[in-house]
Amino acid sequence: MPSVSNKGKHMPESPIRKLVPYAEKAYKANKTVYHLNIGQPDIKSPEIAMDAVAHHHLEILAYTRSEGSQEYREKIANYYKNNNIPVEANDIIVTTGGSEALLFAMGTIADADDEIIIPEPFYANYNGFATASGVKIVPVISKIEDNFALPPISEFEKLITQKTKAILICNPGNPTGYLYSKEEIQTLAQIVKKHDLFLVADEVYREFTYDGYKHFSILEEPSLAENGIIIDSVSKRYSMCGARIGCLVSKNKQVIATALKFAQARLSPPTFAQIASEAALQTPQSYFDEVITEYQDRRNTLVAALKDIPGVQVGEPKGAFYCIVQLPVKNSDAFAQWLLEEFDDNGETIMVAPAAGFYSSAGVGLNQVRIAYVLKKESLIRAVEILKLALQKYKD
Amino acid sequence: MPSVSNKGKHMPESPIRKLVPYAEKAYKANKTVYHLNIGQPDIKSPEIAMDAVAHHHLEILAYTRSEGSQEYREKIANYYKNNNIPVEANDIIVTTGGSEALLFAMGTIADADDEIIIPEPFYANYNGFATASGVKIVPVISKIEDNFALPPISEFEKLITQKTKAILICNPGNPTGYLYSKEEIQTLAQIVKKHDLFLVADEVYREFTYDGYKHFSILEEPSLAENGIIIDSVSKRYSMCGARIGCLVSKNKQVIATALKFAQARLSPPTFAQIASEAALQTPQSYFDEVITEYQDRRNTLVAALKDIPGVQVGEPKGAFYCIVQLPVKNSDAFAQWLLEEFDDNGETIMVAPAAGFYSSAGVGLNQVRIAYVLKKESLIRAVEILKLALQKYKD
Repeated sequence: MPSVSNKGKHMPESPIRKLVPYAEKAYKANKTVYHLNIGQPDIKSPEIAMDAVAHHHLEILAYTRSEGSQEYREKIANYYKNNNIPVEANDIIVTTGGSEALLFAMGTIADADDEIIIPEPFYANYNGFATASGVKIVPVISKIEDNFALPPISEFEKLITQKTKAILICNPGNPTGYLYSKEEIQTLAQIVKKHDLFLVADEVYREFTYDGYKHFSILEEPSLAENGIIIDSVSKRYSMCGARIGCLVSKNKQVIATALKFAQARLSPPTFAQIASEAALQTPQSYFDEVITEYQDRRNTLVAALKDIPGVQVGEPKGAFYCIVQLPVKNSDAFAQWLLEEFDDNGETIMVAPAAGFYSSAGVGLNQVRIAYVLKKESLIRAVEILKLALQKYKD
Repeated sequence: MPSVSNKGKHMPESPIRKLVPYAEKAYKANKTVYHLNIGQPDIKSPEIAMDAVAHHHLEILAYTRSEGSQEYREKIANYYKNNNIPVEANDIIVTTGGSEALLFAMGTIADADDEIIIPEPFYANYNGFATASGVKIVPVISKIEDNFALPPISEFEKLITQKTKAILICNPGNPTGYLYSKEEIQTLAQIVKKHDLFLVADEVYREFTYDGYKHFSILEEPSLAENGIIIDSVSKRYSMCGARIGCLVSKNKQVIATALKFAQARLSPPTFAQIASEAALQTPQSYFDEVITEYQDRRNTLVAALKDIPGVQVGEPKGAFYCIVQLPVKNSDAFAQWLLEEFDDNGETIMVAPAAGFYSSAGVGLNQVRIAYVLKKESLIRAVEILKLALQKYKD
């Protein structure tokens, strides 16, 4: 029998996926499971986007241009300009989700065995795209004690080799919720300019900032024009994860011309989803105001309740809708499994994402979990109560 | 300034893309251009599919499962069973177009520098996916004199090395229109079984067969259960190219488990498009009967008219909606450009796809073009008339 590739064998599984059989066991035991593990928001998608698809008049569901329809790209450029990011339609390639934008970016800037430095903990699927692309991720550790701020410049410089092609950040961060300051972006700009690297920024949570903080995009920094590549997506912004529309943005003409060749090979991004995403750009500000207020409220509730549990440490997330929580357990993988398999309080339990999968360094983050606050406030309160009771009972 | 990857530099451009500036020049000169170059059918998508999306009741456009929704996969399995292909929902991973299924297949079975043997001429984007995956395509030539039938088994065996992981076919073929017989599939089965290779079959044109011929799928051949991987797509079957839904199908559990990890990294296929594609499975047989009759009629018209031109050689396509046409010119790239830039008959000209881009061997197919018969019969008649007049005038 022919065998699969080594690449395929090394493709990582999602850190959550391992828990799915235990979650199914919990359902079978009629337990209610509060899902703190997922990034699928419970917020409604903008009506204007959903209606645009319902009112479509297409007779032939045809390909669009590989780089996305011209009208949509022009409207995206306007969106960026309104966010102080000076880009044009020609600087944008529409992709099938932020996922494909990441895959195109890696293929565009790195060959097999090239290295990309990423502050960890980081979005677990970066591992998957790196493995698929044959690229090596070099982690630089950021710490819960520092609220996951940018590690010192010296830590990056220690890791830069001839093989280093880029630094990749997620801002605001999944799974940390950390929001890089303008000064931190400028520090990164100095490093990448000095060493001739790309700076790839996954900015899909751009709108999700709290406490009055404002997101500063890498392309707001003029010195990054040739080095910066933005990864973007409609998934979180409009609660349209199932659209699978994102984009890759760069002022570097060679980057766009090269990414376009990857885009041409797969023909075009999905047409219905482009209709929804183009309409979503007209979403009124009131939608975002409500959503951000809701998330900030959830975050306040969640973080306050977590801090109340003895032995639990949590950062102060300033953006996105995740936080990394350090627990008084040795192995959060075993704890997460135990929560689903063995524990319940009045028939209720919780599912969390063990954080080890968000680190590339072995043995780091073993006592941490990622919690997403995409549930209603009352559910979050009850979920944290369950966590507290579970920790009292758990022995590892 | 940082530089793009070598992989990116070597990503091939579509063979048609080079002609786009000349097509734009033709439009500016107010010429009417008959597009014989494209694979975007002019056939309407099934109403049942388009209506399903128009009648959606989604409030949150959420992710589906990475492998596609369970309901849709079960219905796809039924579709295959009705086509004499014995597969279950668990043997299917829904992908973002046949394109992504090809990318997943290459990642699943081949590491960097591994080799995949493909009869040429072949679908040009195989080059793009191979370059993106770091995989080497080894062409085995099939000839217009043989109507592009399967090359002799000895030609394959000459090319098999330690690095060979698979043979990839497109059946019915783009760009040849060739339909492999049951005996040819069984010959391929012998080769891959003997050498422990995968047989990957791009069967997206399964329904498009003419003259009473019936498609024989690789998974109708029981001996291929562990070696066979089908690449499929709704794009051509339902004239839904813009849906971007396809699937990867295999009875080999290790292949499916590995491809699933690639699927998980990109989260999920597009949700609206899955709604359309699931509904499309209820398309009545009358739709296909009409479409196939229409294409067969177009093919008859096209091939007869082409054969009437002195010095032109054309195969007898038995499937899909393309044919390779050999012209009395030295360089079809230059000829295709000249048609757009210099030639017209009463303000009308044609755009063809130079065939060199469908060959991996250098210098082969230089006097050939691919013609797609996705235009109405009257347009095809006029287009071939233009070709005839152009050939009379052209000097190379």
